[in-house]
Amino acid sequence: MSSLLIFQSDFGIADGAVSAMYGVAYSVSRDLRISDLTHEIPQYNIWEASYRLIQTVGYWPKDSVFVSVVDPGVGSTRRSIAVRTINGQYIITPDNGTLTHIKRMLGIAEAREIDEEKNRLPNSGESYTFHGRDIYAYTGARLASGMICFEDIGPMVDVESVVELNVPETIMDGDTIIGSVDILDVRFGSLWTNISKEQFKTLGVPYGGRVEISIMNDTREVYRNIIRYVKSFADVYIGEPLVYMNSLDYIAVAINQGSFSRAYNVSPGSNWKISIKKAPKLP
Amino acid sequence: MSSLLIFQSDFGIADGAVSAMYGVAYSVSRDLRISDLTHEIPQYNIWEASYRLIQTVGYWPKDSVFVSVVDPGVGSTRRSIAVRTINGQYIITPDNGTLTHIKRMLGIAEAREIDEEKNRLPNSGESYTFHGRDIYAYTGARLASGMICFEDIGPMVDVESVVELNVPETIMDGDTIIGSVDILDVRFGSLWTNISKEQFKTLGVPYGGRVEISIMNDTREVYRNIIRYVKSFADVYIGEPLVYMNSLDYIAVAINQGSFSRAYNVSPGSNWKISIKKAPKLP
Amino acid sequence: MSSLLIFQSDFGIADGAVSAMYGVAYSVSRDLRISDLTHEIPQYNIWEASYRLIQTVGYWPKDSVFVSVVDPGVGSTRRSIAVRTINGQYIITPDNGTLTHIKRMLGIAEAREIDEEKNRLPNSGESYTFHGRDIYAYTGARLASGMICFEDIGPMVDVESVVELNVPETIMDGDTIIGSVDILDVRFGSLWTNISKEQFKTLGVPYGGRVEISIMNDTREVYRNIIRYVKSFADVYIGEPLVYMNSLDYIAVAINQGSFSRAYNVSPGSNWKISIKKAPKLP
Repeated sequence: MSSLLIFQSDFGIADGAVSAMYGVAYSVSRDLRISDLTHEIPQYNIWEASYRLIQTVGYWPKDSVFVSVVDPGVGSTRRSIAVRTINGQYIITPDNGTLTHIKRMLGIAEAREIDEEKNRLPNSGESYTFHGRDIYAYTGARLASGMICFEDIGPMVDVESVVELNVPETIMDGDTIIGSVDILDVRFGSLWTNISKEQFKTLGVPYGGRVEISIMNDTREVYRNIIRYVKSFADVYIGEPLVYMNSLDYIAVAINQGSFSRAYNVSPGSNWKISIKKAPKLP
Repeated sequence: MSSLLIFQSDFGIADGAVSAMYGVAYSVSRDLRISDLTHEIPQYNIWEASYRLIQTVGYWPKDSVFVSVVDPGVGSTRRSIAVRTINGQYIITPDNGTLTHIKRMLGIAEAREIDEEKNRLPNSGESYTFHGRDIYAYTGARLASGMICFEDIGPMVDVESVVELNVPETIMDGDTIIGSVDILDVRFGSLWTNISKEQFKTLGVPYGGRVEISIMNDTREVYRNIIRYVKSFADVYIGEPLVYMNSLDYIAVAINQGSFSRAYNVSPGSNWKISIKKAPKLP
Repeated sequence: MSSLLIFQSDFGIADGAVSAMYGVAYSVSRDLRISDLTHEIPQYNIWEASYRLIQTVGYWPKDSVFVSVVDPGVGSTRRSIAVRTINGQYIITPDNGTLTHIKRMLGIAEAREIDEEKNRLPNSGESYTFHGRDIYAYTGARLASGMICFEDIGPMVDVESVVELNVPETIMDGDTIIGSVDILDVRFGSLWTNISKEQFKTLGVPYGGRVEISIMNDTREVYRNIIRYVKSFADVYIGEPLVYMNSLDYIAVAINQGSFSRAYNVSPGSNWKISIKKAPKLP
C-alpha cells in the first residue's frame, strides 16, 4: 500500500524549493504519494501553519506523514521533532509552536526529538539553511515509506514540552461572548473566530435566529450589526452577512459571495476582538 | 491500472481545503493518481469553471474522473450531478452551469443526480458548507477507484435538464463577424473570443492575411487596428498584435510577448464586443 | 519502479494548460509520478527557467525527466532538444538558453534534437501554439516511462551547440569582488549573487566576520553597509541584514525575516552591480 506524505511550508511555489523536497523524498522511495497541504503560509507565520494542520489532518488516513516547515529559527538551537497524533498520523516540524492546535485540540500521543546526525540527507552537511529539505523532507519520506520506524527518529520527549504559542481565550461577559479572530478563510474572506460551538450554544440561538455582532479594533468599534445564524451561505441573500459554524466547529462570520475581511478591513491579531450575543427581540 | 482523479475549484491553494479533498480521496483509495486542473477559478465564477473544463478534458484518457466545485449555491436546493461525456470521461459537480461548454461543445452521454444519502463521507453530517469535500471529492474518488460504478451514483436524469449558462452568440453583419470575449488566457493576456474557426473561414483570410479588428465597450470603441492572422506568435514581431486560432479552434487576439488584455483593459463580459472582418486591400 | 516526470513552465496555474500536460502524460502511462518544479517562471524569462533547473535537478534521482517550457520563440525555427546531464537526468526543452546553467555548472553528457515528426502527440497537427503539451510533455512522458529511449528522440547534436545565454562575470578589483544579482529568492527577498564560494574565500572572511557591501544601480549607489557573514539566518538579529552562502554555494544577501529586495528595490538585471570586500577593522 502506498504511503502518504504531505508537505506544508512558507516557501511559496515560484522557485525550486518545494520541488527539491519532492526530489529528496522520491529519492528515498518512489512508492510515496506526495502532495501539498499548502506552501502559501505567510512567511514565518507559525500560528497559521499550526491552524492549517488542525484544519486538515483529520481528513487524512492513519499513518499519513505531514512535514511542516515554517521555521524562522532555522539554524538556531530550536529542536526538530516528530509527533504521533492520537489518531495515528505523524507530523515532522521544527518545535516552534507549529503543533499548538494539534496538541490542544486533537492530542499528541508521543513525541520524539529528531536525531539530526542520523536523520539527514547524506552529503548535505554544508547547507545550513535548508533543514526543510535535508532533515524534514528526508526524514518524513523515510518514515512514510517504512525505511525507519517512529522510534528510529530519536529519543522520546515529554509531550508536555512541545512548544505552544499563546492561544487567546474567550471571555463570557454577562450574555456576551468576547473572542478573537483566529484566522481568515483567505480566499472567501470569512473570519474564523475562537468561539466554539459549545460556548455559542449557551446563547440559545437556533438556526435562523439573530445575533448581534460587534468587532473592535483596540478601542474603536469597526462593525456592529444584527446577523442571522444559519446553516449555510445559501440561507441568506447574496451580499448579506451571516454567522455560521465552520468545519472545526467554531463560529465564523462572512458575507455571502463577498469578503467580510475586505469589506471591513478585519484581520487576525491580538488587537481585534469580536463580541457576539443573542439579538434583542424585535419590538 | 491506476485511476485518474482531477480536482478543480475556486478554493485557492493558501489553506487546507484542497488538501482535505486529497485526504478524503486517498482515504478511499491510495491507488488513485490525483492532480489539479486549477483551484484559481475566480470565486463563484461558474462560467470560467465551465470553460476550463472544456479546455482540458480532451487531453485526458477515457475513465478520468473530474471533480469541479464552484458552488455559489452550496447548501441550497441546487442538485449535485455526475455526467459521462461522449468521450467516456466523468465530471462530478453542482448542477449550476459548470457543464455548459461540455454539454454544448463536447456532449454528455448520460447524467445522474447524486444520491447524497448514499454518497457522502461517513460522519460528515454536521458540515453544511463543505459539499466539495464530503460529497464531490468522496464520490469522485469512489467512482475513479471502481468502488462504485456510475449507476450507483443515483438516478438517471435527462441530459437536456443539465443547467446551461446563457452563451452569447456571434452575429454576421455583412462581411463582419461580431462576437464576444469568452475568457482570457490569464497569464499571457490573450483574448479568447467566441468566433469559431468555421465562421472565421467564411472571411477568406489566409495565414499571413490581414484582418480589421474593432473592440467596443458598450458604445465606446476602445481598439481598432489591422492585424495579421498567423499560425504562431513567432510569425509576428515582438510587441506586435496578432490574431490566431486557439487550441479550441476559436479566434484569439494577442500581443506577442505582451498582454493584449492589460494593454487595452479588455475583459470578458457582456458589455464587450469584438468585430472582425477582412482588411481592405492596401492602396 | 515508477518513473519521475517533472514539469516547469511560465504557464501559471490559473487555467487548464498545466493539467492538459498532465493529461497527455498520463495518457502515455499511468505509472508515472508527475510533479511540478514551478509554473510561476515570469513569462518568457528563460534566464530564470535556467536558474530554477540548476537549483533543483541535483535533488532528484538519476533517470528523472524534466520538461521545461518557457518558449518565447514557439513556432519559430528554434529547435527542440533533450539532454542527458552528467548525473543521468534528462531535460526536454526548447533550445533557447534554458540549459545555460545546467551546461555550465553541472554538465551535459549528450544532447539530441527532437524529431518532431515522430515525437508528437497523435492528431495534434492543427495546433501550432502548444508545443509544450504536444511535443515536450508527450516526449517527456514517453521517455520517462521507457516507451522510447533517449536515442529515439532524434539525432545527436554537439553539446557545444546548445544555446547559452550571456552570463555576467565577476570582476576582482583590488580587494573587492564586483558581481551581479543572478536571481531573487522570490518569497524571502534575498539576493542571490554570481559571486562563488571560491571567490569569496579569497577575501579571507571567517564565519561571523564582517564584509562591506555596496549595491549600485547604474551609477547610483543604493546601498552601502557593513554586514556579518554568517552560517545561518539565526546568527543575526531579526531585521538585521546578513551575508550567507546559498544552496548553490554562491553569496547571498538577506534581511533576517525581512525582504532585502523590497527594502531597497533591488532586482536582478544588468544595470545592477554588487561589490563585496572585507570590512576594515573597527577602530
